[in-house]
Amino acid sequence: MQHIRHCQSFLIRSKSLKFSNSVVASVSVWDGRLSHRWQSSGSHQRQESHNERISKYRFALAGLLAGAGAVLAYNLRDGKPERADTSGQLTVPETSSFPVYSLEEVSKHRSLDHGVWVTYKGEVFDITDFVALHPGGDKILLAAGGALEPYWALYAVHQQDQIVNILSEYKIGVLNTESYREQEKANSSDPYCAEPTRHPALQINSLKPFNAEPPASILTDNYITPSAIFFKRNHLPVPKVDPETYKLEIEGLPGGVVALTLNELKSRFPKHTITATLQCAGNRRSDMNKVKHVKGLNWGVAAIGNATWSGARLRDVLLYYGFGPEVTTKARHVQFEGLDRDVTGVAYGASIPLNKALSEEGDVIIAYEMNGEDLPADHGYPARVIAPGIVGARNVKWLGKIVVSDEESESHWQQNDYKGFSPSTDWDTVDFKSAPAIQELPVQSAITHPAEGVSVDPSAGEVTVKGYAWSGGGREVVRVDVSVDGGNTWHVAKLRSGDEEQKDTALPPPPPGRAWAWKLWELDIPLPDKATELEIVCKAVDSSYNVQPDSVAPIWNLRGVLSNAWHRVKVKVSDKH
Amino acid sequence: MQHIRHCQSFLIRSKSLKFSNSVVASVSVWDGRLSHRWQSSGSHQRQESHNERISKYRFALAGLLAGAGAVLAYNLRDGKPERADTSGQLTVPETSSFPVYSLEEVSKHRSLDHGVWVTYKGEVFDITDFVALHPGGDKILLAAGGALEPYWALYAVHQQDQIVNILSEYKIGVLNTESYREQEKANSSDPYCAEPTRHPALQINSLKPFNAEPPASILTDNYITPSAIFFKRNHLPVPKVDPETYKLEIEGLPGGVVALTLNELKSRFPKHTITATLQCAGNRRSDMNKVKHVKGLNWGVAAIGNATWSGARLRDVLLYYGFGPEVTTKARHVQFEGLDRDVTGVAYGASIPLNKALSEEGDVIIAYEMNGEDLPADHGYPARVIAPGIVGARNVKWLGKIVVSDEESESHWQQNDYKGFSPSTDWDTVDFKSAPAIQELPVQSAITHPAEGVSVDPSAGEVTVKGYAWSGGGREVVRVDVSVDGGNTWHVAKLRSGDEEQKDTALPPPPPGRAWAWKLWELDIPLPDKATELEIVCKAVDSSYNVQPDSVAPIWNLRGVLSNAWHRVKVKVSDKH
Repeated sequence: MQHIRHCQSFLIRSKSLKFSNSVVASVSVWDGRLSHRWQSSGSHQRQESHNERISKYRFALAGLLAGAGAVLAYNLRDGKPERADTSGQLTVPETSSFPVYSLEEVSKHRSLDHGVWVTYKGEVFDITDFVALHPGGDKILLAAGGALEPYWALYAVHQQDQIVNILSEYKIGVLNTESYREQEKANSSDPYCAEPTRHPALQINSLKPFNAEPPASILTDNYITPSAIFFKRNHLPVPKVDPETYKLEIEGLPGGVVALTLNELKSRFPKHTITATLQCAGNRRSDMNKVKHVKGLNWGVAAIGNATWSGARLRDVLLYYGFGPEVTTKARHVQFEGLDRDVTGVAYGASIPLNKALSEEGDVIIAYEMNGEDLPADHGYPARVIAPGIVGARNVKWLGKIVVSDEESESHWQQNDYKGFSPSTDWDTVDFKSAPAIQELPVQSAITHPAEGVSVDPSAGEVTVKGYAWSGGGREVVRVDVSVDGGNTWHVAKLRSGDEEQKDTALPPPPPGRAWAWKLWELDIPLPDKATELEIVCKAVDSSYNVQPDSVAPIWNLRGVLSNAWHRVKVKVSDKH
Repeated sequence: MQHIRHCQSFLIRSKSLKFSNSVVASVSVWDGRLSHRWQSSGSHQRQESHNERISKYRFALAGLLAGAGAVLAYNLRDGKPERADTSGQLTVPETSSFPVYSLEEVSKHRSLDHGVWVTYKGEVFDITDFVALHPGGDKILLAAGGALEPYWALYAVHQQDQIVNILSEYKIGVLNTESYREQEKANSSDPYCAEPTRHPALQINSLKPFNAEPPASILTDNYITPSAIFFKRNHLPVPKVDPETYKLEIEGLPGGVVALTLNELKSRFPKHTITATLQCAGNRRSDMNKVKHVKGLNWGVAAIGNATWSGARLRDVLLYYGFGPEVTTKARHVQFEGLDRDVTGVAYGASIPLNKALSEEGDVIIAYEMNGEDLPADHGYPARVIAPGIVGARNVKWLGKIVVSDEESESHWQQNDYKGFSPSTDWDTVDFKSAPAIQELPVQSAITHPAEGVSVDPSAGEVTVKGYAWSGGGREVVRVDVSVDGGNTWHVAKLRSGDEEQKDTALPPPPPGRAWAWKLWELDIPLPDKATELEIVCKAVDSSYNVQPDSVAPIWNLRGVLSNAWHRVKVKVSDKH
């Protein structure tokens, strides 16, 4: 875990550091929150030694990293639910006397040598000591000499009391009125101001960046998920892309860098259409959260959807631009960059193995249509990667660049996120280099009907259970077993591969390894005699006869990804609705 | 289930059947076994009506099919442990008076119209009624008019009391002395008389056909499993193949049938070497047997091995002989036939999907070497299929024929065996057409050290645990978790991909989807304080992040295949060895 390592190495190095900051705070803990008494000191001497403060932060950070703070560490670019409703107000006593600074003075402190000052809501902080402790690394220096607000707006994770309390430890003064007004004006620009309008049915897990899923109850009403309710998983603001000026760059091929217009993409290569399911690595994370808290958006069972996608085969594009034997000898990966960027200009990025990208049977496309229409803004307009069978995170949206390379993408999301670990691995022991980036996903299924906690009418004598099932790598789901007694006895569900009206028109089975689309399933199960409640369970089997694990705890992992244990729903059996 | 259906349809048709057989038996059950009193009757009238007898057999067969009889149904070609130690003696009262027949008279009854008579150990049976009840179908007619012994020698499943008792129900007479001597002479030829010599360490699950695995304790001593102890899974007698006259036929290509000599196979195509693990679908079946009895050989954890294989790429061979676009439009499978045949002349057979066979990355070879030497007789000399990542049963040995086809192999083993079903599916409800033939296998791991039940010395303070892990479809094992507390807490094992001496020479990772070889793993785990016994558990994760299921019962299936739940070994902690 890069960031924590950073912190640890700082703890060692800190003994020999020299300090340029100059305010003293004594900290006490009451009412479950960090508070403080400020003592101004003309001599700028500390009441606490630096080591004491480090120790305190180490403690505070340990808590944070075990709790919400690791969100900061790992959701820095990954987004964080805006649901943590915080006023963002500092808990500073109203009556306190601080030095008053101008923005010009603040702006002189932009480095470790000269001190790192920042402002937040009209107050000034010297965070020099905190730089090395910052879970997001030295990106914090981007704000040096100026306001935090524009960055916190981008990374809403900071908008919580714990973070604000940590900041308050470093307060050294307040801005003069003129400077504060100037800032307020500048801060009003919100990188998320241009987000598209979304469907009201979506259940929002995070507003900025936007992450939402449909209610499970409507997810499986259509074999092809309507774009409007197809789960949205954005890592950054949705970029506004002008289709007239859009260029897709391609690097790593013998001809050097090429740039392709949208029109060229559409006209130069055959249009290839596939039906493919995309699933977020964090789908069903909420089940892991029930076992033990994990870091990430609390997805239910609907961070998955099935759509038709049309575009140019990536294979065709790469071959057209010179991919050949001389590239093959070295290259092993195809990297993708989105046009969505963070404040430092770093784009969202990911990569897939070269053989997936090049295989005729891999069906990787640069899609410009979803369900027969232009890609919606939330799904990557004007072009995105569809790498079927592979985790959503590699299906890069708003595609700006393709790089054929001997290395995986260096992006945070490829290197330090979207990987699986043992349940025994925690944030203190995790080594992201030890695990492969998630590509193909394991077999998955979930119940979408009935909903958890509802009452089932016993007079019908049976209960109708519905859901979806899918597996990564093009492995077709071949069976779904359903139980209404918690998994003691099983019934085999009826699978379908088309919409309701096509139910009886059996589609030809997809070729082995190219079953990209989910199966919907349902069955009627007799109600057990005298049952007053049922635990409904489902588990799927794919064409490699891989199965879902029985329980969540043994696959629990600190990032809450790959949550594919049997899905369980408890309902009551009662005629009182 | 073809055979049972056959029986059921017979039960309906039987009402209108006419009978030509002529002996009366009343049957009573005592001492847990079927016995009988014979009553000769000149008028050939039955004491029991036909329907009564059918009903009785239906009952007896139901028991058999739920028990050993299904072995007969499904191990007819699949072999059955010879361990069922039976004398094969009929429980016929010594003093009984039966008509005496000559072989010539017996030989006149070879059809349902003329009656179906057989002999066994000098006695004569009219099995006309039994033909439709025979779990092996009408293959029983092959023995019509003659001795059963040559067939029962091939299918050792018949050598058990229950089968002999069923037969005794149909006794109608005895052979005259001359005929009996003639038969005894003929019957002495054993189709298994030419089997190769095997390594004494092998633990034999079935002698005829030969099925054996090494002790788990030595399985993982070598990264490359020595051929001598590599598990043997034969379905029929080992054929003696003369390399000088050996011909490999290829059908289904535009040029018509071609035949390839061994020399041509070796000289015409580049020699391609891969290291690949083969696993029997029934590996670890013994764990399923502990939950509920299943049909098949009671394999431990060692029906798996890892070897280097060299031969011609199947892809190269098919392309050389004219595979091209005109075949692609129709063909979807490549069928294989072995030179090992049953008494009817039907060869062992299987098929794999065409795209696996043709893919450059599929690495399917027609191997003529194992671990750098000619294939041993038990492993398919002179040539066999190695389809890495795919269940052993499709890696056809003693390869005689390749057929490119739009259909899967019609063989019993492809159609009515080696498929997975829900735990709720039993022999009454199974429909073999409802499940796909096993191709790629799911992720697997097992503990090979320490052995079940041994004592671990507490003075060391830790226990060393070793094992193997592998997954089908070329998916690399990326992690093995080990627990010494039954699965509550986990430790991550150290994986290796080479022999002990190469341990520190990290091999480059195989390309995605081409990790055909297993990983061996080990780790030292601290002994829990004051533990007196440990339940050691392992579970593997592959590159698609598929995991092994927690427990056996939910993946239990009537054929006992695909047994890949967490492997558990219980040991004592004691200094008394």
